[in-house]
Amino acid sequence: MKAEIITIGDEILNGQIVDTNSAWIAQQFAPIQIAVKQISSIADTASAIVDALQQAEERADIIVITGGLGPTKDDVTKHTAATYFNTGLVRDPQVLLHVQEIFSRSRTGDMPDINKQQADVLANAHVLFNDVGTAPGMFVRQNGKYYFFLPGVPYEMKFLIEHRVLPILRDLSPSTFVYNAHLITVGIGESHLARQIEDIENAMPAFVKLAYLPKLGMVRLRFTAVGTDHSLLKAETDRLASLVATRLGSYVVAQEDISFQEVIVRRFSEKGLRLATAESCTGGNIAAELTAIAGASQMFQGGVVAYANQVKVDVLQVDVATLQTFGAVSEAVVRQMAEGAKRTFDTDYAIATSGVAGPGGGSPEKPVGMVCIAISGKTETIVQTYQFKNDRAINIQRATIAALTMLWNLFQKEESDPVE
Amino acid sequence: MKAEIITIGDEILNGQIVDTNSAWIAQQFAPIQIAVKQISSIADTASAIVDALQQAEERADIIVITGGLGPTKDDVTKHTAATYFNTGLVRDPQVLLHVQEIFSRSRTGDMPDINKQQADVLANAHVLFNDVGTAPGMFVRQNGKYYFFLPGVPYEMKFLIEHRVLPILRDLSPSTFVYNAHLITVGIGESHLARQIEDIENAMPAFVKLAYLPKLGMVRLRFTAVGTDHSLLKAETDRLASLVATRLGSYVVAQEDISFQEVIVRRFSEKGLRLATAESCTGGNIAAELTAIAGASQMFQGGVVAYANQVKVDVLQVDVATLQTFGAVSEAVVRQMAEGAKRTFDTDYAIATSGVAGPGGGSPEKPVGMVCIAISGKTETIVQTYQFKNDRAINIQRATIAALTMLWNLFQKEESDPVE
Repeated sequence: MKAEIITIGDEILNGQIVDTNSAWIAQQFAPIQIAVKQISSIADTASAIVDALQQAEERADIIVITGGLGPTKDDVTKHTAATYFNTGLVRDPQVLLHVQEIFSRSRTGDMPDINKQQADVLANAHVLFNDVGTAPGMFVRQNGKYYFFLPGVPYEMKFLIEHRVLPILRDLSPSTFVYNAHLITVGIGESHLARQIEDIENAMPAFVKLAYLPKLGMVRLRFTAVGTDHSLLKAETDRLASLVATRLGSYVVAQEDISFQEVIVRRFSEKGLRLATAESCTGGNIAAELTAIAGASQMFQGGVVAYANQVKVDVLQVDVATLQTFGAVSEAVVRQMAEGAKRTFDTDYAIATSGVAGPGGGSPEKPVGMVCIAISGKTETIVQTYQFKNDRAINIQRATIAALTMLWNLFQKEESDPVE
Repeated sequence: MKAEIITIGDEILNGQIVDTNSAWIAQQFAPIQIAVKQISSIADTASAIVDALQQAEERADIIVITGGLGPTKDDVTKHTAATYFNTGLVRDPQVLLHVQEIFSRSRTGDMPDINKQQADVLANAHVLFNDVGTAPGMFVRQNGKYYFFLPGVPYEMKFLIEHRVLPILRDLSPSTFVYNAHLITVGIGESHLARQIEDIENAMPAFVKLAYLPKLGMVRLRFTAVGTDHSLLKAETDRLASLVATRLGSYVVAQEDISFQEVIVRRFSEKGLRLATAESCTGGNIAAELTAIAGASQMFQGGVVAYANQVKVDVLQVDVATLQTFGAVSEAVVRQMAEGAKRTFDTDYAIATSGVAGPGGGSPEKPVGMVCIAISGKTETIVQTYQFKNDRAINIQRATIAALTMLWNLFQKEESDPVE
């Protein structure tokens, strides 16, 4: 079954809010084999709503309309839908009681007359009772299509999808299945990757699709199979994913849909390994990305943001002479920073960065975008210099991914080649 | 002028990513009087693209298409557009050189043939040169409409909108002027703010519009005036902005469109003040947000991410007995962390955080979302405990803003009441 989501409201169109509802709805629909084919954000006007409904009917079986159900005058959804379905609005007594009850519990107590209109529903609709707010949802079945009208407030919408919409949809399509498999790769670009697995991709059966989802420094591969035989879908998709995983070898860091940062936190935690950071140009970003993962405290001991040179000397025991001879942005200094962090925080691994993030601070010898990164592991310290570009935010992000990739590579080498 | 945004890609439709690009684009268009009338997220198929282009032409003058310009075969945008415009693809030599140059700087060096296709552009297009990535943008003017094809990677899209698209669009309507003024407020909610300036807002002339743009812990006020008399627009908008600024007093941290973080970096730098951080639950996020601002090294000395308790003792000289008596998440410990950081990094101010970011680690006495924050200044250390909610990412973000707000308040107090 195909679905379309229509979100109504000027605050999305003028950029004041980001539409996170649609992605959430799509995530709920995927496991029950309902594919969202289009998401349209439209204005709060009768003509925009009518056009959107007409066009959605051409493309989809299920049409979810969110927003535009509030009591204020700029919400025209219900009246427009009534005209569109050639029906009227009726006041639902159960909803009216519920709305009055919510108001009687509020601070002011008295309910403006305008709010009674919240209890008006399409005469041809089945009411989707909204326990957590005043605007009821509505389900209309007409012309062989299924329409769900929901409020735009995220937690009300989520309540109605979970408790009212999904149970209805589950009954509609018990026969097709969707199965997904994921591979997370690091250290190889999208096009190199595509070339390495071209033959596998060309030989894939038609019911499996492969998508490349690149993000700075990593590429996510998503295999999606659709069909009626669930065990066949699963078997074939898993077989293809593991064929690709074997071909790509150590570029694959995870066989599920998680971030590279989460892979590192999990694997280090499993192995009982401890990590520290000593960041200059990345300014705490590496620590922040790792500690954004729940459970990071299992493996992350701590870090230093060593912006001033004195901090490099005082906290990380970088040698003053080395600093003076080679400068703060140098392989010699970043090596000492990593080794100093490993000692200070008493860890198995430490990451250190030093560079010219920009836009100022560059020189002919050390231009903007030059970043030195060191990883100190159990047996050795590896150091590399990168030359990124002019944008400060991107340089910080690239240096972060480069450092995590170096950490991962050293970790893999040392784990496959144990110290003891 | 009316605009429509079409975003191409299955990863939005299946809910794997949220479309933040469209809201950002709408925000850029608003000040130059281009209203986004619809945002459509569609599948990566020729038929979906053709339908979306046809329908957008009915509604809009300017059509922005993002995504679907990568080199792999799941991207069909360029070929579909060529058919749609009844034209072909030509290889652009300047773009080809640029793509080859990017590959020659990468580790592997050799460029797969498939990437040459990145240099293929619509024969009827004006190339929008992409300095920050391999996929060029394209501008097509046909049937009285303006089409902009852009990559979907956010920072590449943003670069092209800012440097290529906006200059073209500004030339389209040169006779009217738009003038913007901004106020950044911190520490006051949107509705309280609106109530405080209600009379000023009601008395504003029709050609000035005021938008409230709230973000965690801060609200940006944007005054936009549109008309033909530039000096009148400027005079009236500036007058209103300064009227509002006077009314709001110290809630206003800047009278230009910059972030709160940038306000802090600038004001501390101007005053020659130095700052350090000691972060536990925020995990380096405060340091990362401050050092994301160019010039932060003027005022930011460094920080410690004190995740493990031992780090709090060893690096920040937190007293072991205090830790044992009150626990890591306590006002007593966070006070010592701030004072320890000020000593260790030899600064005028230090920020410290300690809390239960979640989702695990909570207890009845110290539930998930409890965060203690201390600011040590020139004359005193202030401490406060907050109770946020259950989401780890939001708790880290809220704690960051709360800490910066406390820092700002102490800074204002101490600066208006100097120590010497």
